[in-house]
Order: sequence, then structure tokens, then C-alpha cells
Amino acid sequence: MPLPPEFALIARHFRPLAGEGALDLGDDAAVLAVPPGRELVIAADAIVGGVHFLPDDPPDLVARKLLRTNLSDLAAMGAAPLGYLTTVSVPRDTPDAWFAGFAAGLAEDQAAFGLHLLGGDTTSTPGPVSLSLTILGTVAAGCAVRRQGALAGHGVWVSGSIGDGALGLLAARGTLADPDGWLAGRYRLPQPRLALGLRLHGIAAAAMDVSDGLLQDLGHLCRAGGVAAEIDAALVPLSAAARAAVLAEPALLRRCLTGGDDYELLLAVPPAREAALREAARAAGIAVTRIGGFRAGEPRVTLVGYDGAAFESGADGRAHEGWSHFG
Amino acid sequence: MPLPPEFALIARHFRPLAGEGALDLGDDAAVLAVPPGRELVIAADAIVGGVHFLPDDPPDLVARKLLRTNLSDLAAMGAAPLGYLTTVSVPRDTPDAWFAGFAAGLAEDQAAFGLHLLGGDTTSTPGPVSLSLTILGTVAAGCAVRRQGALAGHGVWVSGSIGDGALGLLAARGTLADPDGWLAGRYRLPQPRLALGLRLHGIAAAAMDVSDGLLQDLGHLCRAGGVAAEIDAALVPLSAAARAAVLAEPALLRRCLTGGDDYELLLAVPPAREAALREAARAAGIAVTRIGGFRAGEPRVTLVGYDGAAFESGADGRAHEGWSHFG
Repeated sequence: MPLPPEFALIARHFRPLAGEGALDLGDDAAVLAVPPGRELVIAADAIVGGVHFLPDDPPDLVARKLLRTNLSDLAAMGAAPLGYLTTVSVPRDTPDAWFAGFAAGLAEDQAAFGLHLLGGDTTSTPGPVSLSLTILGTVAAGCAVRRQGALAGHGVWVSGSIGDGALGLLAARGTLADPDGWLAGRYRLPQPRLALGLRLHGIAAAAMDVSDGLLQDLGHLCRAGGVAAEIDAALVPLSAAARAAVLAEPALLRRCLTGGDDYELLLAVPPAREAALREAARAAGIAVTRIGGFRAGEPRVTLVGYDGAAFESGADGRAHEGWSHFG
Repeated sequence: MPLPPEFALIARHFRPLAGEGALDLGDDAAVLAVPPGRELVIAADAIVGGVHFLPDDPPDLVARKLLRTNLSDLAAMGAAPLGYLTTVSVPRDTPDAWFAGFAAGLAEDQAAFGLHLLGGDTTSTPGPVSLSLTILGTVAAGCAVRRQGALAGHGVWVSGSIGDGALGLLAARGTLADPDGWLAGRYRLPQPRLALGLRLHGIAAAAMDVSDGLLQDLGHLCRAGGVAAEIDAALVPLSAAARAAVLAEPALLRRCLTGGDDYELLLAVPPAREAALREAARAAGIAVTRIGGFRAGEPRVTLVGYDGAAFESGADGRAHEGWSHFG
């Protein structure tokens, strides 16, 4: 009594990814224990072909980006990865090689980041490929790092470099030079800052990951903390490739600050914790940069050092053009 | 500094659904404690407009069916609901009323079933509405009811009535008479058998929910247990509406047995536990019916009493036409 085709597909491509608690993907649900003293951290994202990735992107890279953007959410909470579920809706004529590539991407990154598949669903769709991923992690009870917590006097810090993802999208589309492929690579394959995130408890007063654009996301930290922020464009860390692109076309700096797809960590750090942050960053092997500070005031982001002028986010909240799906 | 449109939409429609651990949907992830002595039970489903629901189905019913089909997976594991995450990909011109209706459906059913929203994602899509839902429940450690466990000599039992969902799809499409709307109602709004599921530990040796058709799903129980099953078509419980439809057109019985969308529980129950099962069913207010038994042999489902003849599932596993997305 062989399996019907849908289940054979799951057995072939997804069962090898299943780990503890997944029950070989053969039950109605996964069953797992959260270790004593730990809390569950859980988030979900959806991505759609033609919106979040290019229809002809290699499926292994699509899978890895989907997993990594969710891992970035865990990093922002200071959580360690545990497992994930994914739903895959694809056209009926999707070749087996697409599933093989998608699963190979997941296999590579679940080994790299120490988690495994717990469950999911595979369906057909008359539309573009639509994917969702729910990520599970754990954190010591009471130790999750939240978005709320920024106070006047705290520094605004970011990990890594900002703007590569936004410029990388242009590079991937062929509208921006990218001699060594760095920018496109950063767009296609974010680096979730888990090693840094795991060290943030007791150091960062607030944290989130930068996915919708630095300025928009900093606005979230401001709203959550009830504070204003001022950052200096000249302090925002750019990669060598992004710096070269901005030098050639200065208007691209705005795109770096608003374009999103960074998956870096954005932090509020009290001055007394800066040394600890630098030590944590050294231990994690991830650069951190102070780009400004929080101050008392209505939630608002002020950017200085951009073309010598200061501009503030407008009353409609859209001046900085952070990515929005329903603008 | 007002929220950008996407976040305003989430705040308006989804934040009111958020409960403990969801952090008001304002963080990168939800953080929640699994009570001591309990294990986490988790599953995910995806549904697509034009495949799993009709494009003009009311959004509140779409939401409720999505939530209920996932609750049915918890019921099959003997788990109690805890919370859920949902991803919503919709066309850019989707009216606010669609979101309002979708959220209203979730609100109604999360109150009815005792769970709340923990997180999710909202994106645009150039294709049909694509939804995913990840359900979380808990079960006493070691007490999840699994698909594996059926032994020769156990009875095959089902809850409720079989075939309403499959006939209800025909009724919803207007190709089958449905005078009182019972069948279409059962298709649009499954009844997850949580109250029965919670009582199955120590009674059912194996369980799953019937979503892809009774015969195909019974095949899963057979494979998981390494046993054969024989059921009697005359014993399969049909609702009054389904019985009337089958009397008028006997070929519809096959559709009842293979069509899916039942969301009833399918159980393997040792004879010594039958009295306990009946008592549990009485306490839960849900009918249960013995429709056959498991026996030693290669995994295979034999149906007797159908047109007086017996037919067996074919070597390609598809003779019974359980729903498959990649047939």
C-alpha cells in the first residue's frame, strides 16, 4: 500500500529534515518538551514569489532566506533556535527538482544553525509560490529581550552593516553594479545575528531586527519605549561595497537607510553597558556600531548628517519609506 | 509618528485577538511558558483561495475553517488548545472589510475554543488569497495520542458522521440538493472534536483526524501500526442529510468514504476499552461508531458492504481517491 503522491513527496524531501518531536512528520502534529526554566519564543513569516523573492531564484536560496529571516527574529529576542514548521504552496506542475532544492537549502541551514523541521503542509496553488515558516526558539525564563525598554540616554546601536540588502536587491535585478557579488549575496542570504542575540540579555535594554528599513524600525523602538531617537547618517556602518555605491550615487544612502532586508540587530544600550556590548560583539564575532542616541520626546526619528541637513520622519510616518505591504 | 499602513492594519484587526505571550504583536516574536508537566503540540496548515475555499466565501467562515481544521489536529493528538499564529497573503486591493471579517471569524472561534493569537505576518500577493495557520496546544507529558499503535483485534471507530464535508462541497457549489443547508454547513464549518480528543489518552491506541477521506486516512493508521483494516460500509455513520443524498444517488457513498473534509476522529480502540470510549463520548457529547476492525496483515484497507461487494485499496494507493494535491 504505497503512499499517495503528496505524502510520498513529503516523505522524500521533508522527512529527512525532521528531528526530535516531529514524529517523522507522520502524525497530526509534533510533540515536544520545552526544557525546564526555558520559555518558548515563536514567530511566523510569509513570503510570496514576485513579492519577496524573484520567481527564478534558486529554491535552496529561497528556503535559506526564509529560514534565516525567521532566525533573525529569534536573534532579536535573545533566543536560541529549536525548530520550525513550513507551509509550501506551489503550482501543480512544480518539478520534483524544485522540492529537492528547497529541502537541500533547509538541510544546509538547519545544520548550520542547529534546529530541525517539526511539521508543515504542502499544497497546490493557482498563483505564485507562497511559503510560510513558523520558527520556534527558547530563552531562559524572563530573559527575552523586548522592543520596549529604550530610555532617554541610551545609545542606538546596530550590528554588521546597513543597506546591503536594499542595494543587493538592485544588484540582483541588474540595475546596480556589484563587481564581487557582495550586495546580491547579502540580499539573498541574510546572516541572522544569533550569536550576538544570545549575549544581549542584561546588556541591551531593547532590541529588534532591521527588516523593514533602519529608520522605520527605529521608529518602532521609539514608539515601544516612548522616546525619540537621533542618529547620524555618517555613523551608520556601510559595507565597502555599499560605500562605493553611495559614493558613486549619493542618493543611494537614502535607500540604505530605508530599504530594509538588513536582518541586523538594532539595539538600545545604556552607556554603562557599552563595554559589555563590545565584549559580547567580540565574542560573537559581529561588529557593533553606535549610530546615535535616544532622548526624551515624542516618538520620532531624526536623522542628521544626511547631505548636511536634518530631516525628520513626517507626520504620516512614511517619510522614510520603510517597506510596507499596504501603502 | 503614526504607524505605517501595514502596521496600522495589524493593530486595528489583529491586535485585539492577541493574548498572553503575544506581547501585543509588537515584538519580533511571542514569548510564552509551557506549563510544567505539559508538552507542546504544534502543527501548521496552508489554504489557498480557489483550492481549499471558494474565492467569494465569507472571510469570517474562511478564518474559522482554517482555525478549526488545525484544532482538529490538536483533537487527534489529545491536546488542549493554547494559541495560534497566522500568515495572511492577500491582493493589494483587498478591502479593509475583508480583514475585519477575517478577524471577526477568528475572534468568534478563539473565544469558543479557548485560545488566542500569538503572532503572524501580513503580506501582499499577486495571486489568490493564501493563508497559513500554526496551532499550538499542550498535552500532559507522555500522553499524546499517536497515529501508531493500532493492533490486530482493535476496533476501527469514528466520531460524528462521515461524508458531510465531501457532499457539502457539492452542495456549496450548487450541484447537490441541500434543503436545510446541513451539508454545506458541515463543509464550511468543521467541528473539531476537542472534547473527545481530551478524553482519548488511555482509551484509544491510535488516533488521527479524517481530513483526506476516511479510506485514505485509515490507510495511514494501518501503515503506522503495521496492520490491515476491514470496515463495513453499512456501519459508517452518515448524517440524515448524507443518507438522503446517498439513497437518491448511491454512487455518492463512495464520495462520502473518500472525499475528505470530515474532521472527525478516526480511532483504534482495544475491545477492553470500548466501554470507556462510549463513556468518554457521552461525556463529550459526541457520537462514536465502530465501523470495523484491525487485523494482522500487510497495511491495506478492505471495505465490505459496498454494493454487496468488497473492494480493496489498489497497489498504487489511489483506488480510494483520498484528496491529494499532487496526484
